[in-house]
Amino acid sequence: MLATRLPLFPLTTELAATPAGPTLTIGGCDLAALAQQFGTPLYLYDQATMDAAATSYREALARHYPSETGVTFAGKALMLTAAAQWVQRQGFLLDCTGAGELHIAATADLASHQILVHGVNKSDEDLAAAVAQAGVIVVDNPTELARLAQIATQGRTLPELWLRVRPGVAVETHAYRQTGQHDSKFGFSTEEAISAVAMAQAQGLPVTGFHFHQGSQFFDPTPIGPGIDTVLELVQTLYQQHGWLPTTISPGGGWGVAYHEDELPQPAVDEYIAFIAKRMIEGCHQRGLPLPRLQVEPGRSLVARAGVALYRVGAIKETPSRRWLLIDGGMADNPRPALYGARYSALPVTDPDRAILGPAWLAGPYCESGDVLIEDLPLPEIAAGELLAVPASGAYHINMGSNYNGARKPAVVWLRDGVAHLVQRRETVSDLTRRDLPLPFGA
Amino acid sequence: MLATRLPLFPLTTELAATPAGPTLTIGGCDLAALAQQFGTPLYLYDQATMDAAATSYREALARHYPSETGVTFAGKALMLTAAAQWVQRQGFLLDCTGAGELHIAATADLASHQILVHGVNKSDEDLAAAVAQAGVIVVDNPTELARLAQIATQGRTLPELWLRVRPGVAVETHAYRQTGQHDSKFGFSTEEAISAVAMAQAQGLPVTGFHFHQGSQFFDPTPIGPGIDTVLELVQTLYQQHGWLPTTISPGGGWGVAYHEDELPQPAVDEYIAFIAKRMIEGCHQRGLPLPRLQVEPGRSLVARAGVALYRVGAIKETPSRRWLLIDGGMADNPRPALYGARYSALPVTDPDRAILGPAWLAGPYCESGDVLIEDLPLPEIAAGELLAVPASGAYHINMGSNYNGARKPAVVWLRDGVAHLVQRRETVSDLTRRDLPLPFGA
Repeated sequence: MLATRLPLFPLTTELAATPAGPTLTIGGCDLAALAQQFGTPLYLYDQATMDAAATSYREALARHYPSETGVTFAGKALMLTAAAQWVQRQGFLLDCTGAGELHIAATADLASHQILVHGVNKSDEDLAAAVAQAGVIVVDNPTELARLAQIATQGRTLPELWLRVRPGVAVETHAYRQTGQHDSKFGFSTEEAISAVAMAQAQGLPVTGFHFHQGSQFFDPTPIGPGIDTVLELVQTLYQQHGWLPTTISPGGGWGVAYHEDELPQPAVDEYIAFIAKRMIEGCHQRGLPLPRLQVEPGRSLVARAGVALYRVGAIKETPSRRWLLIDGGMADNPRPALYGARYSALPVTDPDRAILGPAWLAGPYCESGDVLIEDLPLPEIAAGELLAVPASGAYHINMGSNYNGARKPAVVWLRDGVAHLVQRRETVSDLTRRDLPLPFGA
Repeated sequence: MLATRLPLFPLTTELAATPAGPTLTIGGCDLAALAQQFGTPLYLYDQATMDAAATSYREALARHYPSETGVTFAGKALMLTAAAQWVQRQGFLLDCTGAGELHIAATADLASHQILVHGVNKSDEDLAAAVAQAGVIVVDNPTELARLAQIATQGRTLPELWLRVRPGVAVETHAYRQTGQHDSKFGFSTEEAISAVAMAQAQGLPVTGFHFHQGSQFFDPTPIGPGIDTVLELVQTLYQQHGWLPTTISPGGGWGVAYHEDELPQPAVDEYIAFIAKRMIEGCHQRGLPLPRLQVEPGRSLVARAGVALYRVGAIKETPSRRWLLIDGGMADNPRPALYGARYSALPVTDPDRAILGPAWLAGPYCESGDVLIEDLPLPEIAAGELLAVPASGAYHINMGSNYNGARKPAVVWLRDGVAHLVQRRETVSDLTRRDLPLPFGA
């Protein structure tokens, strides 16, 4: 069990001998000691695993694409000050959705050339913050471009503008994670994009690129091919009709990761980037277009594997056909099983290579039957009080969490060079009422 | 359209003439003025509608059940200080899950006889807070009863203990909302309950009742019948074997509300209570048992209809077969469509009775295709900047919300006697980073 599940865990995960028995360590830190120090549920990030993922993108781009390249970190996957700091150190762009995430970027001291702004329905506040802070705004629709044109007439200098287009093709994934289809809520149609570039040229707006994104958590890059073709077709038309060429093309992100041992081996970043690069090179060559800068936008594949959630088992319950392990977190810190039917795996922190007893169901403490974190996972006999480590917990947990049933959001700890840094403190009960105002009730 | 959708809205909803045209008002307050004052997305609660729902429960219980009755408000449906204050004024018990919700109850100054504690996996902190604060603890499993017995030996006085049992029958609803089946994570099996009562008698633990709950958002009370029978069978066995009788039986809650006009008319509370009362009376009579106190536990049916969410339309987008109205909230404040496929309805705040143009899709600003609040709803032509009111937004929104994409949680405003009280302030961007600690990066 240990050997089959370890590839889901961070690269630095090891088994160390301790007085309590063989215990999992990550980044040189003992998970049982971390749970003791910071409490549970606890989210851990292994920076070495994030660094390695970042390197794999940089190397694949350099290997396969003979022109300028860049990486945008899709901030929606993990957004807190420490993560934004890490993005900055990597020299990546940080994708921020709106004023909320831009505030986090500012807290991490990111300069404007490190910030890109997305959003399908940017508010006035979002757009003002984006113009003030960002190096790139990805414009979602004609109305938004008109609003930016209006801002420009007020004497504000606009950052680079990339137009988000709908290529009409989505990837194979859960419907909630498909975004490229013709009836998607996101982006310009190709016809709208042609008018938008003409309008931008006429008004001197800095439209310099195209972005598209077809969905996330996919393992087969093939559907990106027609997406690239559609966009290059659009570029060719614009070049012929308006003499306009984009500086940058961004085919989005969404490359998958393994959440469960059935999804191993880990999808290879090199294969994904090689596919995109080849299609871009061939497509540009066929149409006589110069190679634009290729900007990819991974989120999940940079951080999911680096993250591990630690839970402590409370009650254990046998129902007619299930062994329930009731843990101290679940739907409130990780709604992905309930939202997408996502399947996770787990290992006991101590003595993880014990013999399997049989399947177990891991459920959280919340009053909701959808609060089942893992169904039907082979596990050894587990005692009340034991710690379980859930791998691939680094993306779309922290920022999708809720306070349902009075849950307090977990602490987040960053592991680097054997040192554990608290980067987000656990919520307290006082946090739950900090925005409440009592109702004045008369006598 | 107005006539068919108005029964989804609070009881006090009216159309008032204003300079901007006929405008929706609730509790005597102009919705457009509230949006202007407090911003959007905005959550409104109409106390008159909550009061009327509370009265319907009290009256139905008095009409149909000739012994003691009581109401517990299922706090998970809506938990903030003002709601807890309202529960107190109604003389209901407030159900709290764990230390987080108990803190909210304390903030609202609830006395112990007004507090009941639920939870499938109560932590040591939860159990300590429950013993200190609650009048009733609903015990979920044998391990928890043993922990309470241990606490009693330390000299602490325990509150009333009710055992949660699994009746082996669930109601017809979404699988995530079914809770009564044999393989549910919740409660004691009937065999375990027999041993537990015997153990409680031997050790002098104050076990005084049974609770069961078969699921929520159902419209047909029939499956509660076999649930009641199972529990009364259990009571009969316990009476014969141990001479023990429960003071209270609580058949849970979960009665549904209409979220969409296709679900109207509103399910009648009287029909639900009449069914339960009749089955309890008949079941006790057949078994020669005295009538216990009947304690029901509604949540959604007390507050869902009282709540309205106000959104402002930003961009409007036509894709090949959809009219998209992009609004300023969605999945982050209301994950129910993504979690349960819940269908909602809406009305424009101003001139809501205009002619229908055709179907519209309402989507939020988040980078997620699952962020579609309403699909395929007939609506008039809607202009950018207009306000839309979504009814039946009072339960399971506020407390299930997230900060996904940097979303800040909405303000909550309480409407009573023509006065609007802010009872939960809107989150600011600073709230998003208040728990962050920067990562020390070396040179």
